[in-house]
Amino acid sequence: MNEIIIQKYGGSSVSNIDKIKRIAEKIVQKAKQGYRLVIVVSAMGKSTDKLVKMAKDITINPRERELDMLLSTGEQVSIALLTMAIHNLNREAISFTGRQAGIVTNAAHTKAKVTNIHHEKIKNALKKGNIVIVAGFQGINLNGDVTTLGRGGSDTTAIALAAQLQASICEIFTDVDGVYNADPRIVHNACRIPVISYDEMAEMAILGARVMHYRAIDLARNYKVKIIVKSSFEPGEGTMIKEVDAMLEKVIVRGVTQEKNVGKIVAEGVPDIPGIAYKLFKALAEKEIIVDMIIQSSRRKEINDIAFTVAMNDFDKANKITKKFVKEVKAQGMISDSEVAKVSIVGAGITSDPLVASRMFGALSKEGVNIDMISTSGIRISCLIKSEHLEKAVKAIHKEFNLEKAGEKK
Amino acid sequence: MNEIIIQKYGGSSVSNIDKIKRIAEKIVQKAKQGYRLVIVVSAMGKSTDKLVKMAKDITINPRERELDMLLSTGEQVSIALLTMAIHNLNREAISFTGRQAGIVTNAAHTKAKVTNIHHEKIKNALKKGNIVIVAGFQGINLNGDVTTLGRGGSDTTAIALAAQLQASICEIFTDVDGVYNADPRIVHNACRIPVISYDEMAEMAILGARVMHYRAIDLARNYKVKIIVKSSFEPGEGTMIKEVDAMLEKVIVRGVTQEKNVGKIVAEGVPDIPGIAYKLFKALAEKEIIVDMIIQSSRRKEINDIAFTVAMNDFDKANKITKKFVKEVKAQGMISDSEVAKVSIVGAGITSDPLVASRMFGALSKEGVNIDMISTSGIRISCLIKSEHLEKAVKAIHKEFNLEKAGEKK
Repeated sequence: MNEIIIQKYGGSSVSNIDKIKRIAEKIVQKAKQGYRLVIVVSAMGKSTDKLVKMAKDITINPRERELDMLLSTGEQVSIALLTMAIHNLNREAISFTGRQAGIVTNAAHTKAKVTNIHHEKIKNALKKGNIVIVAGFQGINLNGDVTTLGRGGSDTTAIALAAQLQASICEIFTDVDGVYNADPRIVHNACRIPVISYDEMAEMAILGARVMHYRAIDLARNYKVKIIVKSSFEPGEGTMIKEVDAMLEKVIVRGVTQEKNVGKIVAEGVPDIPGIAYKLFKALAEKEIIVDMIIQSSRRKEINDIAFTVAMNDFDKANKITKKFVKEVKAQGMISDSEVAKVSIVGAGITSDPLVASRMFGALSKEGVNIDMISTSGIRISCLIKSEHLEKAVKAIHKEFNLEKAGEKK
Repeated sequence: MNEIIIQKYGGSSVSNIDKIKRIAEKIVQKAKQGYRLVIVVSAMGKSTDKLVKMAKDITINPRERELDMLLSTGEQVSIALLTMAIHNLNREAISFTGRQAGIVTNAAHTKAKVTNIHHEKIKNALKKGNIVIVAGFQGINLNGDVTTLGRGGSDTTAIALAAQLQASICEIFTDVDGVYNADPRIVHNACRIPVISYDEMAEMAILGARVMHYRAIDLARNYKVKIIVKSSFEPGEGTMIKEVDAMLEKVIVRGVTQEKNVGKIVAEGVPDIPGIAYKLFKALAEKEIIVDMIIQSSRRKEINDIAFTVAMNDFDKANKITKKFVKEVKAQGMISDSEVAKVSIVGAGITSDPLVASRMFGALSKEGVNIDMISTSGIRISCLIKSEHLEKAVKAIHKEFNLEKAGEKK
């Protein structure tokens, strides 16, 4: 049997009939090279947004089961049209909904997790010479209800299928031609990264690179699924995401990312009682708010400040929770600031070389950029700064680490 | 357990968000009266047409499996939105696709027939106090592929569910307030028919009354499902379709119908050989062309003319087949005429009373309307006339049988 390749096309790649036809041609060309192909498609362009708007016009609070019922139609339209376009090129193909593709999820409507894939139907269809077209972003729960996978859902469908079908590669086609070591809209000489590790890519995704959702990258890492991110319509090699052997890896700054969509909250003058910080962060976790940077600092004896950052769409909720906390524990007050941004560098081993951090801080200081908070993980260093400084901060760091020489330029 | 009522709302009843909300209110009011409700919904307004257009923009000849995959999304959107609208009125409801409702069909994509309904899921949902919202027009075949039921599909879904769930009645909501004894656009004093038999209604539907598809009426007759046809938004009693006891029934002309969408074809001078007419009609049947009126007339010894009518959308195909037939059997020639129309009267027992037919022909003759062909079945008499005469023919017949006094006026 020939190699299986998974290809995923996002909504912007199938946003109109003309694009669907062009994608069909690409797919048929690939099939002619002898590969067995499973294609995962998102809903056309803005069609999911339109469906959401209809639901919101009916009720401000649609139930999630019905929302999934509604939204899953978007991908079903795409798979049917793409399959027709492939038939029109005289090639056998068959469309499968998430259910027909055997994608079983847990019961968490609108953000379901894939728990199993019964891939017999896909295997049989491939065996008969079909290109198999699967609706991304959707599955069914054990009750037979339609579920959707939430953000990054179609990428997750593609990676999960690649893992289950032991595909040689998962190609993610999108509207950019790869992963860049800085945002090309800010840094004009940003470079495409030819190869990046799962860990680095996951950090980049979390820290603001919009190319793929980190959830799909996590899944790929767990199952060692090789990914290529490339443009649907432009030529180019794209970016390969795979396991990179750490032993052979020099300490290298892979890229710089920025995130404006972040807010900072400080609970001031919190009594220094054991477990008091836990109380706050537990309350936040219970509302599923992900806290990023945390700094607890002692201003004077028995009084601490607790500062943390959250994504902007959790900002209001987090403010409310913190306000309640401040009142309950009789802290002195709180500050919240949405005019902040996070600039980060990502690269295997960078936190083990102190020089990297000091060069980053130095570059920012030379530009007069004040660092408000710092956080690090194994392979990243992030600084919270004023959002008005973000652009010059990204440029300065990109230059400091010679990232303009790191690969192919835009 | 309370009575089960099936309600069906067509595309024009759910063509926008506002109408969906109004329908939801109607449904909730009905539920408050203590009925257990199963609601069948069509796709919103023209959405099916839009999907068909997309498919045709991809390929002139989309495969039917993929067309069904595409078209079935229309009803899935409606059921989700209607269910949300009912939730918004604080009433429990749940949406089911054709598959989830357990509607199993044969494999004939785009015109599938319902073969079975596994109604456990619906029963359970009703038992839990839900209003159950089912996607009309769709099911699955034994292979698990999505199928659609073709013309009159949502009506068929509703009737089939009514039969299986032993509903006390099936209410068909549409954009007219009942079945009329003539087309109100032509006959200004046409009357709503309060009660009509299955047989009469089926004939009316075949003969041009667009209210319901005859296929759904046939199914209702087979399972003795009582139907009421009424308007979604206007008040009124509508028309009840049920078994009417023939013994109690006087000979009565129930209504007059017209059909412009018809063409006439004549094979002229066909050799009078046994089985030669069969040869022609077999060729037509093989292409699934339904032939309506047939007249074979002898002009002179051993030479016949064979005239028949077909629906206009089969007219070109029928012409081709007849042309080939004429050539093969060495007939003298053929005539085809699309400027014809069919006017019919329907009523139990009318063909057993010769006076009815003669009154019909007389009324036409008085208006100078020439009758080209005549056909009758147990409960109808149809005349083929020039289409330009159609309007005055309908009016004359309506008057002749005093149909303006037969019921409630528009």
